[in-house]
Amino acid sequence: MKRIGMLTSGGDCQALNAAMRGVAKTLFNAKEDVEIYGFLNGYQGLIYGKFRLLNYGDFSGILTKGGTFLGSSRTPFKTIQDPDENGLDKVAAMKQNYYKLQLDCLVILGGNGTHKTANLLREQGLNVVTLPKTIDNDLWGTDMTFGFQSAVDIATDAIDCIHTTAASHGRVFIVEVMGHKVGFLTLNAGMAGGADIILIPEIPYDIDKIVEKIQERHDRGSAFTILAVAEGAISKEDAKLSKKEYKKKMEKYKYPSVSYEIAEKIQKKSGLDVRVTVPGHTQRGGSPCPYDRVFASRLGSEAGKLILKGEYGFMVGYKNREIVKVPLEDVAGKLKMVDPKSSIVKEAKMLGISFGD
Amino acid sequence: MKRIGMLTSGGDCQALNAAMRGVAKTLFNAKEDVEIYGFLNGYQGLIYGKFRLLNYGDFSGILTKGGTFLGSSRTPFKTIQDPDENGLDKVAAMKQNYYKLQLDCLVILGGNGTHKTANLLREQGLNVVTLPKTIDNDLWGTDMTFGFQSAVDIATDAIDCIHTTAASHGRVFIVEVMGHKVGFLTLNAGMAGGADIILIPEIPYDIDKIVEKIQERHDRGSAFTILAVAEGAISKEDAKLSKKEYKKKMEKYKYPSVSYEIAEKIQKKSGLDVRVTVPGHTQRGGSPCPYDRVFASRLGSEAGKLILKGEYGFMVGYKNREIVKVPLEDVAGKLKMVDPKSSIVKEAKMLGISFGD
Amino acid sequence: MKRIGMLTSGGDCQALNAAMRGVAKTLFNAKEDVEIYGFLNGYQGLIYGKFRLLNYGDFSGILTKGGTFLGSSRTPFKTIQDPDENGLDKVAAMKQNYYKLQLDCLVILGGNGTHKTANLLREQGLNVVTLPKTIDNDLWGTDMTFGFQSAVDIATDAIDCIHTTAASHGRVFIVEVMGHKVGFLTLNAGMAGGADIILIPEIPYDIDKIVEKIQERHDRGSAFTILAVAEGAISKEDAKLSKKEYKKKMEKYKYPSVSYEIAEKIQKKSGLDVRVTVPGHTQRGGSPCPYDRVFASRLGSEAGKLILKGEYGFMVGYKNREIVKVPLEDVAGKLKMVDPKSSIVKEAKMLGISFGD
Amino acid sequence: MKRIGMLTSGGDCQALNAAMRGVAKTLFNAKEDVEIYGFLNGYQGLIYGKFRLLNYGDFSGILTKGGTFLGSSRTPFKTIQDPDENGLDKVAAMKQNYYKLQLDCLVILGGNGTHKTANLLREQGLNVVTLPKTIDNDLWGTDMTFGFQSAVDIATDAIDCIHTTAASHGRVFIVEVMGHKVGFLTLNAGMAGGADIILIPEIPYDIDKIVEKIQERHDRGSAFTILAVAEGAISKEDAKLSKKEYKKKMEKYKYPSVSYEIAEKIQKKSGLDVRVTVPGHTQRGGSPCPYDRVFASRLGSEAGKLILKGEYGFMVGYKNREIVKVPLEDVAGKLKMVDPKSSIVKEAKMLGISFGD
Repeated sequence: MKRIGMLTSGGDCQALNAAMRGVAKTLFNAKEDVEIYGFLNGYQGLIYGKFRLLNYGDFSGILTKGGTFLGSSRTPFKTIQDPDENGLDKVAAMKQNYYKLQLDCLVILGGNGTHKTANLLREQGLNVVTLPKTIDNDLWGTDMTFGFQSAVDIATDAIDCIHTTAASHGRVFIVEVMGHKVGFLTLNAGMAGGADIILIPEIPYDIDKIVEKIQERHDRGSAFTILAVAEGAISKEDAKLSKKEYKKKMEKYKYPSVSYEIAEKIQKKSGLDVRVTVPGHTQRGGSPCPYDRVFASRLGSEAGKLILKGEYGFMVGYKNREIVKVPLEDVAGKLKMVDPKSSIVKEAKMLGISFGD
Repeated sequence: MKRIGMLTSGGDCQALNAAMRGVAKTLFNAKEDVEIYGFLNGYQGLIYGKFRLLNYGDFSGILTKGGTFLGSSRTPFKTIQDPDENGLDKVAAMKQNYYKLQLDCLVILGGNGTHKTANLLREQGLNVVTLPKTIDNDLWGTDMTFGFQSAVDIATDAIDCIHTTAASHGRVFIVEVMGHKVGFLTLNAGMAGGADIILIPEIPYDIDKIVEKIQERHDRGSAFTILAVAEGAISKEDAKLSKKEYKKKMEKYKYPSVSYEIAEKIQKKSGLDVRVTVPGHTQRGGSPCPYDRVFASRLGSEAGKLILKGEYGFMVGYKNREIVKVPLEDVAGKLKMVDPKSSIVKEAKMLGISFGD
Repeated sequence: MKRIGMLTSGGDCQALNAAMRGVAKTLFNAKEDVEIYGFLNGYQGLIYGKFRLLNYGDFSGILTKGGTFLGSSRTPFKTIQDPDENGLDKVAAMKQNYYKLQLDCLVILGGNGTHKTANLLREQGLNVVTLPKTIDNDLWGTDMTFGFQSAVDIATDAIDCIHTTAASHGRVFIVEVMGHKVGFLTLNAGMAGGADIILIPEIPYDIDKIVEKIQERHDRGSAFTILAVAEGAISKEDAKLSKKEYKKKMEKYKYPSVSYEIAEKIQKKSGLDVRVTVPGHTQRGGSPCPYDRVFASRLGSEAGKLILKGEYGFMVGYKNREIVKVPLEDVAGKLKMVDPKSSIVKEAKMLGISFGD
Repeated sequence: MKRIGMLTSGGDCQALNAAMRGVAKTLFNAKEDVEIYGFLNGYQGLIYGKFRLLNYGDFSGILTKGGTFLGSSRTPFKTIQDPDENGLDKVAAMKQNYYKLQLDCLVILGGNGTHKTANLLREQGLNVVTLPKTIDNDLWGTDMTFGFQSAVDIATDAIDCIHTTAASHGRVFIVEVMGHKVGFLTLNAGMAGGADIILIPEIPYDIDKIVEKIQERHDRGSAFTILAVAEGAISKEDAKLSKKEYKKKMEKYKYPSVSYEIAEKIQKKSGLDVRVTVPGHTQRGGSPCPYDRVFASRLGSEAGKLILKGEYGFMVGYKNREIVKVPLEDVAGKLKMVDPKSSIVKEAKMLGISFGD
């Protein structure tokens, strides 16, 4: 008999339900008896003991559903060790609920912040298995995270839509793509959507190079230009600032997001009409794409297998087309970024895409 | 032998190409010889004599393509009668190019602004047939415009995506929908996406009623609320302002769009976390939906028929499921709006949707 | 206090759940107390007393879901009056269950067969309100049925996919579209997908005219031709047969469906490579399109209103853009078909589409 | 100065245009002068000297378009060495056209059959670079082929649609998926669509195991079952036949495809209503999915790079997330199949999916 706790934490994404279904089906199909407790709204549920016992039916019909049926919340790692407003020690509370329910293991689905807390719980002696969820694909230790490909699909759809209107009006259009501090999502959606310029945090841009590229297209007879801009894109000047200086700058930032600053600069320098579109949270919602459904199901299934074997302290990741277990201490606190010298970036450049560098 | 000029003007939308294909195929399939001249980038092409002779192949394979292969531009009616920066009389120039090419008729595809200019050209003695293009569905004289249903589909997709993330996080989410000064697009996308609150220009809102509805949902156990807000939504207070006063207010408007103001107010009054998503220009792009492809093809075909019969001065519209010809002077300068007492609004209210009134 | 029974009968389609949600939300939002009993698997549930009391939550989150959460079954009208295999009088059983539950009204969602039985129950003294569900759009008394537009979307998607492969290989491709004995679905999907030839039951075809059209395209340089063929398409020869003769012919029919016969004939006469694709049941599944979600919600809401007013014996239909109530006796047993002289058919012909006539 | 010939051969698939655009953009963006000749309709164009000189514009706007703008045809390897009906030596003709145009290299996009011929041309002394195109993903030497993920998406869509109708009617539904003689497509679409049973050529099935699984689901309260069946699925008995015996059996095969035989057997053994849906050629058509657009662009770009470096005789493939060059002699004539002991098959089984073995 195994007793499992399960929770989803951080910003939601596609295929969270598919992944949980993968874990649960594998456990329920095993010979051993299993009880799965679902904690509601991320670590909040574990802290305050809000959970329910889940049965086979809870995992039926959820493969194709976006979001997470357990709910999620952002519980910043920075404050997880602080007492709550009533003085409750959150870490102690999580441990207490874990032991009260006599859990054998926690299955935690989340991104970077979530993994820091998951590793903390591991250090505190709890058994933990995690699954890499994020549209940003910025988790260290895995080539791929679920949610990523679905978000690429939605962001690409947006660029496709913008393409026809940009072409009809001969306009410069910026599509701002999510991705937090890394550029995987923008790079892939930009290449898929046929963007002419792609700006990602890992390759700081020079506004003059951007204007040059637009001008060059214009001179060749292309009246329009599409830019895929990561929400974390940064100029060469800003990239030279210290973290503190940059933070200070952004505190007084007058633009809704970086794309608007870039748009204003292009407009000033080129005299062209520049528009900005921000698909925003739509990128993390809706039904997961088939790739993510298969991928999340596979990861979930392997997580179930680890639990059945009693192997804890791992994130289930994906390396060189193999599903692997990665020690949590190797994952927590690290960020995977786009390597500016990677072959995909070189290929994009060979295709004529400018990164503004 | 018939010589036809064709142009698309104003913001582009889906199915412009389908409509032009409908006109052209009907004309090319007729017994009479026909020449079609395509003016580039809207009225600009007619003013400055930029055009090309189109052949059968130009209209092949464009049924499913978004945008307009002729290009478009916004030439405001207000300034059409003013000379251009070189002193050129634009109206005279358009007439001159019309006669120079010995045109029998102009086929003009556009929305409200476009129709004002089209009617002006008719008054000046030119033969004109128009087609009702706009995602806003705000053209007087027709029950439906092409582009509308495709835009409903895209805006609904956005709400569907937001739905899963809103539900997972228990958040209040505003999806801002296009539609200029009318609410058809927001009303339909909101109902299709299962929005709990729909705000449209025709029904000014009371912020307290909105907060009340959110609270009521919260009390019933629904942790999240979705608002579909028209870009032209207006509060009861603002609706009382004169046009001039309102314009003055909007000149100093500190928000990127009305949704952000509404979000801020809800957040203040309810203490809840409110997010805004603006699908923006994606709503007018991409491949037309099957409904619009059929509808635009039919209208285009009937326009071709009118031209073959030599009946000019009409917009081809749609009334009570019949395709009809509407005198241009009846269309120009009028706006079709959502009737707050119409059955669809009443039905939405019966379904429990709040309009904030 | 009102007690309502609800059931869905016949082949399922998109937006059945949306329609039921519309009825239920309207009733639950009314001041009067309402109880809704859901009968499972169509008339079977009413006959054998299989039902459950539905609550608000049952109708939550189902707007976007395909199929019917109550289940459906085909209970042919022809045998409804026959006793079942245990000698049970089905009509009497339905009446008995109706009275046992002290129902005020039955809400029945279905197509042509369903409406015959619904009218029979009305004749037997039961209060009935119906909703027009069918992807075929063949119900008399309403301009539109829900499910239709969603099916058009799916069939059009199939034609779009076939288009690229047909063009690449220079092949003749037949896409067989559903629609039972009428051609609305094929006509609309065919026009939306840019089919060159459309064959519908209402316009019997001449195989030589089809081959002629293909040849004509070939001569003009179009190496490929797309045919949208209704599953009920019929040749001129077969159309001359009596019902009995035709039935006899079809009993010994060696082809999986009519498209394969047509393909074989074209291949023989033209020597060209002809392929057949049958999207089949996919056309009735999946999430309803936004049009159907709005439309079904509206119809459902008006059905709720009728029930609250105690007006029974009607189908809620749609005429000239108004939602109307149509006496059940006017609907039952009649078929709405494509009028070969209707403007949409004429327009399709003006566009150059051949109907093989 | 480089002179390149380009052709697409075999069944078309998504992202052929994207791959050719990748090659061309990389070549056109290089410093060296490049001429690209496009041969029409596969090897036919090379044999009969049908080609045209392509320019930058030919590759513009084709990233998102399905099919191949060069056309394709199936020229079986078996008969490529036979003279044509006029006695022409096809291989000699291809060589002659190659030398006549003074080509430096042929870029050939195709699947298994295509690669055999490409390798033959290499053996004959021509410079060849190939790209792995097939929805089947059965090419040896590469982990992935373009077209595959797009086909997974379409097949999954079909299963999603069938899911709602199967559930509503409590039916057993077979969705027949393409894939020729291998099961990658069916395996992935089946897992993504939540199929309960997946039948692939690599794992011969036992009809009794299938019926058992359906019965088991039925007993647990699931009234419906979805089977994803590969077009090449084979029973344990048939798998024991020699190639010759099996071929003989299939020559007299009375079913349109294997799914109908399986359906008939299940129906007989279980008494349940079984339906078959065959999405067919739709699986190879339509716009490529974002994954394929990026992947094909990358491969195309690397092919361009090889050409610029003068490295010939390779297929550009994908191994362990790296783009690699694979000697053509290693690719030709080999088939990549699903390993029944691979982790994805094991994971599928852990999820409760039956393979009928």
